[in-house]
Amino acid sequence: MNGAEILVQTLLGNGIDICFANPGTSEMHFVAALDRCKGMRCVLGLFEGVVTGAADGYYRMAERPASTLLHLGPGLGNGLANLHNAKKAQSGIVNIVGEHVTTHSRFNTPLAADIAGIARPVSAWVRTATDAASIAPLAVEAIAAASGLPPAIATLILPGDAAWGGAAFVAANVLSRQPKPVPSDTIESAARLLKSGEPTLVILGGSALKGAALDFAGRIAGRTGCRIATQFFSARIERGVGRVALERIPYAVDLAIAMLKPFRHMITVNTSEPLAFFAYPNKPSQLKPEGCEVFELCTNGQDCTQALSDLAAAVNAKPSDRLVQPAGAKTRPTGALDSETVARALLATIPEGCILVDESVTTGRESFVVTAGAAPHDTLQNMGGAIGFGTPVSVGAAIACPDRPVLCVVGDGSAMYTLQSLWTQARENLNVTTVVFANRKYQILRNEFGAVGAGVPGPNALSMLDIDNPTLDWVALAKGMGVSGARVETAEDLCREIERGFAGPGPYLIEAQL
Amino acid sequence: MNGAEILVQTLLGNGIDICFANPGTSEMHFVAALDRCKGMRCVLGLFEGVVTGAADGYYRMAERPASTLLHLGPGLGNGLANLHNAKKAQSGIVNIVGEHVTTHSRFNTPLAADIAGIARPVSAWVRTATDAASIAPLAVEAIAAASGLPPAIATLILPGDAAWGGAAFVAANVLSRQPKPVPSDTIESAARLLKSGEPTLVILGGSALKGAALDFAGRIAGRTGCRIATQFFSARIERGVGRVALERIPYAVDLAIAMLKPFRHMITVNTSEPLAFFAYPNKPSQLKPEGCEVFELCTNGQDCTQALSDLAAAVNAKPSDRLVQPAGAKTRPTGALDSETVARALLATIPEGCILVDESVTTGRESFVVTAGAAPHDTLQNMGGAIGFGTPVSVGAAIACPDRPVLCVVGDGSAMYTLQSLWTQARENLNVTTVVFANRKYQILRNEFGAVGAGVPGPNALSMLDIDNPTLDWVALAKGMGVSGARVETAEDLCREIERGFAGPGPYLIEAQL
Repeated sequence: MNGAEILVQTLLGNGIDICFANPGTSEMHFVAALDRCKGMRCVLGLFEGVVTGAADGYYRMAERPASTLLHLGPGLGNGLANLHNAKKAQSGIVNIVGEHVTTHSRFNTPLAADIAGIARPVSAWVRTATDAASIAPLAVEAIAAASGLPPAIATLILPGDAAWGGAAFVAANVLSRQPKPVPSDTIESAARLLKSGEPTLVILGGSALKGAALDFAGRIAGRTGCRIATQFFSARIERGVGRVALERIPYAVDLAIAMLKPFRHMITVNTSEPLAFFAYPNKPSQLKPEGCEVFELCTNGQDCTQALSDLAAAVNAKPSDRLVQPAGAKTRPTGALDSETVARALLATIPEGCILVDESVTTGRESFVVTAGAAPHDTLQNMGGAIGFGTPVSVGAAIACPDRPVLCVVGDGSAMYTLQSLWTQARENLNVTTVVFANRKYQILRNEFGAVGAGVPGPNALSMLDIDNPTLDWVALAKGMGVSGARVETAEDLCREIERGFAGPGPYLIEAQL
Repeated sequence: MNGAEILVQTLLGNGIDICFANPGTSEMHFVAALDRCKGMRCVLGLFEGVVTGAADGYYRMAERPASTLLHLGPGLGNGLANLHNAKKAQSGIVNIVGEHVTTHSRFNTPLAADIAGIARPVSAWVRTATDAASIAPLAVEAIAAASGLPPAIATLILPGDAAWGGAAFVAANVLSRQPKPVPSDTIESAARLLKSGEPTLVILGGSALKGAALDFAGRIAGRTGCRIATQFFSARIERGVGRVALERIPYAVDLAIAMLKPFRHMITVNTSEPLAFFAYPNKPSQLKPEGCEVFELCTNGQDCTQALSDLAAAVNAKPSDRLVQPAGAKTRPTGALDSETVARALLATIPEGCILVDESVTTGRESFVVTAGAAPHDTLQNMGGAIGFGTPVSVGAAIACPDRPVLCVVGDGSAMYTLQSLWTQARENLNVTTVVFANRKYQILRNEFGAVGAGVPGPNALSMLDIDNPTLDWVALAKGMGVSGARVETAEDLCREIERGFAGPGPYLIEAQL
């Protein structure tokens, strides 16, 4: 068996049966192996930002790593921003990056580059195969890192001669690992805080925002009167009517400080204390009030479900104590599109089981509170701040969950970064409905310009913040990649078109003119 | 003056008056400085691959560095592939990359990343400003590196507090440097080789492919009977009728070996011995025949014009000895589009002074020989092998040379990587005519699949090599970004539409269906 086949078999043998890819010459043996080793689904992206973002979305919904196939240093470089986002979301990914044949690497040929150097800033594990025989053990290490506790990004660099060289194939499997338990004295300390009567905020992140863990947290809040919140951005939240009601720490520093001011304690679960996204003159990076103590209940990699279960027991919380999210008023909005009517349109149309990929930046800020009362759904948000996140993550989420509709809400500035995702959505006939909020500016930067103390933007500055010249025609862009679409200017039309998008089996794009 | 203003003034004071940009919050003070410090033209790209590719194209035509403005690690990551290409072309660029405020960097916030780590694989010089007072001396170092001999990529990381902090501005200038002379005994040795009567190939790269240097090389070839060639890819070649006739070393290893077989000596000027782009089983990386000796006349950073002048004198070459490129037969082709009719269409339509940006990959391989006989023009090629090169390099070339038409010939697979370039072309009203060769596949990979010994592609492999499902509609994609276009299926229509593109002041796109 050649090295590429050993690699594909080792991936398949460890449950990795999807590969998001944009290969080149150095990856042709891996591509050839796709026909010799059955069971690997390979999804082509026309740009590597699509590939890596899709792998992130896949991990978040499938809860197991995908592989990617990337072409040498530049291909990895093109995927770097969405690998950064995936790293911050603690999504597990196995990157396979082709490399020149070992004897060729010493020459300064056009594609020669420091692949490991490019990989390291986004990867917890980086290794280069030396020959075909080295591949199986390295692949197992990579898969173990990607499916670790916490999961991480692993990058395996695959020289051409390792891929085409031969070696014996011996199946090698990653040992499954159990999350570490949270010590009982930690549980007891947290319980004492909750029973102290002092104002306490429980902040949930990572896997605490899903399933039983989230339920236990909701019971604790209902029982003890503590408040319970997420950071402004979370990798995945199970939310909607009937699920646990969660607050959200605001993005704007002043608003966040005001919200957090009353608290004497914060208990963090798989997340950090609240921090400002950016630093601003004369404003703190740490948002907790003076004298507030932060208590870490558990981190990703520990068993947060058991910890929250134990904590619920320690404070005597019952199932009936759970804070329940009430339904929002699903009256369909009408009239011009703005933050409020957009939010109400989403509330009215989000179907049960929907995966809401949220990169709506400024337009969607108001939506988040409102859509808490929508039908039960999952929300995926950008943990790394690199724009161009939403459309590729939607690809991966849709592939992970073929029976669930995906709604991607995205600002026009962000959507332009990785618009090639639409082509993959059409190619794979994914049920992704994309709403592009066309405000024709980097509105967030207009806000931030003053916030960082840069004053009022002059004409040159404004030309860097506005993207209205020329106007982007999103329906034409979608059509160019095989995706149907419509342009809407009213809330009633937005509702109708979102529902049209969900109704079809394939992708649909809506340009919402603000 | 704040640090951002000091930076802009230092760039302007050293002749850098253009900034290709996609800023974010951490760069708002730099953006604000554009209105306070007059003279910096700032060009927005909707993706950083456009920004860095444009800076490469600008350097090649203006022969001085542009600056770029990039948003933290992910913004730099998005620009990495075209920085890789620029590095391989030895284009000088000053990257300004925003960074979090110093006190904020120690927190694991969403955009925190190892910016220097991401920069190093593509940068010869990387430094981080510590405060406003550190900026002027660091900027001078960066500009010196970018305009060095040879030029290089310099990355200056600019924390928010360094940008908004105050310091005294003292103008600081980069010392101009003269290229090092080539020692006379090197000239004499080269002259002896040329006079030996043994078959000798002179291979030109870098600045030896322009102006007086190229002329001297042409005289030497005419006088001594040596042959004279370029590598398969060159950063910039002045070519066309009346200029020096140059051969080209083929891309395919077997063809290159056959061409190079007769030579006993190679004399390299600003380039290396011929190397295979990729390695293939049982084929060499070094393409020179056994026993052939490689003699380095000079490298980038030395004075190649003087060296070639001295060598011309040493072999007694006269202006009248110059090998002159004859005109091609400009009969307009008709009928279906294929490599040959496309080549003849380019020959017939390229106007004098045109800048031909060539990322035509497989379709254009045949064109190169044919267009040697076109009207005098410059050709820019991809030195780094990272696709997505052509459309942004065209942006930079057009901005460097506003009075010259730009023709970008690009494969559909490549054009998809950085299609956002079209928007900047429309915004800046650049006279760029883009011909997208729509063969709907990564044809080069179909060729390479067999060449690397991967056999015949099966259905899964083919699905990674073909991009025909769905069909890309390039006219719609261009329209979506404010660029007019047309689809053509015949050579006569291609000629007509290329001329239509040149006639307008702004950009135009032609989808050439193959």
